[in-house]
Amino acid sequence: MSKIILPIEFKNNTLYVLDQRKLPHEEIIVEVNSIEDAFIAIKDMLVRGAPCIGFTGIFALALWLKTNDYSSGSFKEACDFIKSARPTAVNLAFEVDRVFKLLLESKKKNYFEEVVIFGNEQITTLHSHNLAMAKEAANILKNKFSEKKLNLLTHCNTGFLACGTMGTALGVIEYLGNEKIENVWVDETRPYLQGSRLTAYELTKLEIPFKIVVEGAASYLMSNNLVDAIFVGADRIAANGDTANKVGTANLSILAKYFNIPFYIVAPKSSFDINTLSAKDIEIELRPDEEITYLKDIPIAPIGAKTFNPSFDIALGENITGIICEDGLLSPPFAKSIKEIF
Amino acid sequence: MSKIILPIEFKNNTLYVLDQRKLPHEEIIVEVNSIEDAFIAIKDMLVRGAPCIGFTGIFALALWLKTNDYSSGSFKEACDFIKSARPTAVNLAFEVDRVFKLLLESKKKNYFEEVVIFGNEQITTLHSHNLAMAKEAANILKNKFSEKKLNLLTHCNTGFLACGTMGTALGVIEYLGNEKIENVWVDETRPYLQGSRLTAYELTKLEIPFKIVVEGAASYLMSNNLVDAIFVGADRIAANGDTANKVGTANLSILAKYFNIPFYIVAPKSSFDINTLSAKDIEIELRPDEEITYLKDIPIAPIGAKTFNPSFDIALGENITGIICEDGLLSPPFAKSIKEIF
Repeated sequence: MSKIILPIEFKNNTLYVLDQRKLPHEEIIVEVNSIEDAFIAIKDMLVRGAPCIGFTGIFALALWLKTNDYSSGSFKEACDFIKSARPTAVNLAFEVDRVFKLLLESKKKNYFEEVVIFGNEQITTLHSHNLAMAKEAANILKNKFSEKKLNLLTHCNTGFLACGTMGTALGVIEYLGNEKIENVWVDETRPYLQGSRLTAYELTKLEIPFKIVVEGAASYLMSNNLVDAIFVGADRIAANGDTANKVGTANLSILAKYFNIPFYIVAPKSSFDINTLSAKDIEIELRPDEEITYLKDIPIAPIGAKTFNPSFDIALGENITGIICEDGLLSPPFAKSIKEIF
Repeated sequence: MSKIILPIEFKNNTLYVLDQRKLPHEEIIVEVNSIEDAFIAIKDMLVRGAPCIGFTGIFALALWLKTNDYSSGSFKEACDFIKSARPTAVNLAFEVDRVFKLLLESKKKNYFEEVVIFGNEQITTLHSHNLAMAKEAANILKNKFSEKKLNLLTHCNTGFLACGTMGTALGVIEYLGNEKIENVWVDETRPYLQGSRLTAYELTKLEIPFKIVVEGAASYLMSNNLVDAIFVGADRIAANGDTANKVGTANLSILAKYFNIPFYIVAPKSSFDINTLSAKDIEIELRPDEEITYLKDIPIAPIGAKTFNPSFDIALGENITGIICEDGLLSPPFAKSIKEIF
């Protein structure tokens, strides 16, 4: 096994990101030297995963501060610019807004350094949150399944590539490790193949046994008792527990309920948006046709064929067994349990 | 729009097949002049779909009779040879055995012509069955939705490419046409992409509007009221209505039930196997890793990654709204309605 490569790292006044579009076959580190570079890194998905996008947003602002004089007006413009790279990503807006507030209240006036320190602190904090969530999940599983080796299913990519460090749903799997896990079912996660490209890459690095499956195979697996529990991440969690996540998540939540399989969301409190009351208020980004009709440069559908390509969907609170955050396990009714921690 | 090309056609004493491996980007007609050519066309999957494979088997025997003198012994060898091109294809063995019996009982002794006529009759009969099913479906939809233009979802490929003429689930869509259809949601159907390669090709030819979606988008579509009804084909239907079909079908059936969307199987009576009592007795073929981990020659997962790749799954009778065959609509309880037509 080759060494694990961090997906984003700020050092020598420069942001280094692993170009996740090239994984799993090439490990290419890209230098990000300006907020414009960072905008492209986010928009073109060199970096991905809610936390990593948020961290990239913070460091993008540091890069802006490296070459621009701070004024709250011009800095606000920089903040709006970087937020627009991925408008649906609540983490991006959240982190950028925190940086804006930090500098507005800054006494040191040492803007660049303050933002870099803030960014690194967020990564450290997330690691400790992810670890807390993983321990909580391990505890739930131990109570449910005792010492049985587990077959877990996950969707999209929620590991260190998405989180910068450890991960949310995949952090649980990393924490359990190959001693507790018999097999991880990795949804390939069309159209962008985050599962077969990224989760499979991480699990290979982590030496945890896995098998890739197409999304269509979910019922087959569940009906044959091949899945003990499902763990996925979240892009945004509404006040009632409705959870926006990678398209295909809602399918899994409904199928899990039908087959009576525990379905858990694993996400830090920063993914909660209590101003969003329910699924109805969550806007879903539509992505280009080419993500579905091409693979790299190869057409896999008639030339010019149209698609409908929503990036996310919404698992309703009623179909979620529990939401695990750094404060512990939230159980239904989520409107109540979420309210209690905010 | 270029002309529709039939997937198989017997004319001028020769069999012409469309090489479906090259679709949707190249339309290559291959001349099949001998039983050996036909063997390769079946084995190498130039022709696909149970009915088309069966028809190719019939015409393969006509080609043998063109250059060989009939004796039941030597003809038996030819029959065994062509059956061995795809030993698991039930339709192939079924049609070949019927031809063998036909000639054994022949009074005209005009063997070549008899087999050609028999082959064309089978295509005509299937066409009339498919048309009957399509009319039944159109009738159901008219009663349910009146004159509303419809949004239908389908999975895999069930059109003229598979059936030689018209189709089952896609035959319904062909019959309704672009006057009755607002949009067809075409599941891309991983891993083999029958939807984006073949169904999208057929709908382009038929000038019916469609959009390709990933399987993961099903809940998004259904929860946003973008699907009026779902039509799929069947590989095998058990005595209790449990239906084996392309992997991903079971997901759709459960999601459709959750969202209260009508879910129909469209399949001729030859797809029913009343000796199979329920889903438990249907064996599912597992396919190679490479179908998931490679696209053409391009790896899309870590080299050596393992998969679990069931070719089919089973929609339970309890999640099926109705089964449409050439005798009409079968409704739950299917054990009773299926028994009545056999």
